[in-house]
Amino acid sequence: MAAARAVVPASWPERTAGAGTVGRMTSHDTLHDGTAFQDHYPPDVAACFGCGRLNEHGHHLRTTWDGEGTVTRFTPGPEQTAVPGYVYGGLIASVIDCAGTGTAAGAAYRAAGRTMGDPDDHEPPLRFVTGRLEVDYLAPTPLGVELVVRGHIDEIKARKVVVSLEMAAGDTVVARGRVIAVLMPATME
Amino acid sequence: MAAARAVVPASWPERTAGAGTVGRMTSHDTLHDGTAFQDHYPPDVAACFGCGRLNEHGHHLRTTWDGEGTVTRFTPGPEQTAVPGYVYGGLIASVIDCAGTGTAAGAAYRAAGRTMGDPDDHEPPLRFVTGRLEVDYLAPTPLGVELVVRGHIDEIKARKVVVSLEMAAGDTVVARGRVIAVLMPATME
Repeated sequence: MAAARAVVPASWPERTAGAGTVGRMTSHDTLHDGTAFQDHYPPDVAACFGCGRLNEHGHHLRTTWDGEGTVTRFTPGPEQTAVPGYVYGGLIASVIDCAGTGTAAGAAYRAAGRTMGDPDDHEPPLRFVTGRLEVDYLAPTPLGVELVVRGHIDEIKARKVVVSLEMAAGDTVVARGRVIAVLMPATME
Repeated sequence: MAAARAVVPASWPERTAGAGTVGRMTSHDTLHDGTAFQDHYPPDVAACFGCGRLNEHGHHLRTTWDGEGTVTRFTPGPEQTAVPGYVYGGLIASVIDCAGTGTAAGAAYRAAGRTMGDPDDHEPPLRFVTGRLEVDYLAPTPLGVELVVRGHIDEIKARKVVVSLEMAAGDTVVARGRVIAVLMPATME
């Protein structure tokens, strides 16, 4: 079931080159097919409870480009409660966390002129983990509402991407976050 | 099943008064019976996915006094993974979050000279929610190991408690956190 979320496109659009392109594709062309960054995580790093498409128990968070920033949408289940009727803070932190590392991956690929999931790309995958997470809880977050997290890339270096994020429930900004994402080492040892 | 975790003692120890006491009991006597702060949350605020004893799907995190600080122990299930074999960051943030608000509640009761769960205490409950959460991820957190979170009360005011926390897996400190906990308002509106 979870594996069905791995929407890897059968073919990629023709690559363009020229003014405004970054590497092989324009920045706005990457993942314009509606796939999410997490859809393209290599299988061995696609088991995250928050955003791994292969974790059958997890949240399957998906982050896509939205202009120069990103968007992640998630509707918590009724069990994800704190005070009855409201979302618990740990879930909010989790969503911001995975939206941040997803955004970092997308940003790193874009900066490198690479396209996530490109079958002709044999460079090492760029997968990020969290070095630091900050969340400010601004308003109670109602259950039963889609949460929309918008990510903004503050800083990008070869091994570190800083992302700021804002979570809204309807018209209310309920949380702001900041993720310092670091490139995952080749091994975790 | 979850309700069985509500270990409210049938009787409370004889209250002492005199030098070294804060209110009706000495600070070291509060919850010396092995119950956790979360065991005494009023039922209407005991449904948190992270630490509510009444959330049958949740983690049932429990925080107790440990000297002047607190301790929270939790062993994540195998599904709580990020990279295979390691715990995902959102869970780590959740544990630190609930350990922080639990510590804040305990600290507030102690400072007020009240004992959580005292059946003769008819003052409003002191339940805290998170205003700000910070987590630094210091090392990969292995799955299959009990995580031990020690909380330290940095600051306590009537409506705000600041708690710093350190999470260890065995001898390795895997994360440090800071929670600014704020007293829950009478209503969330």
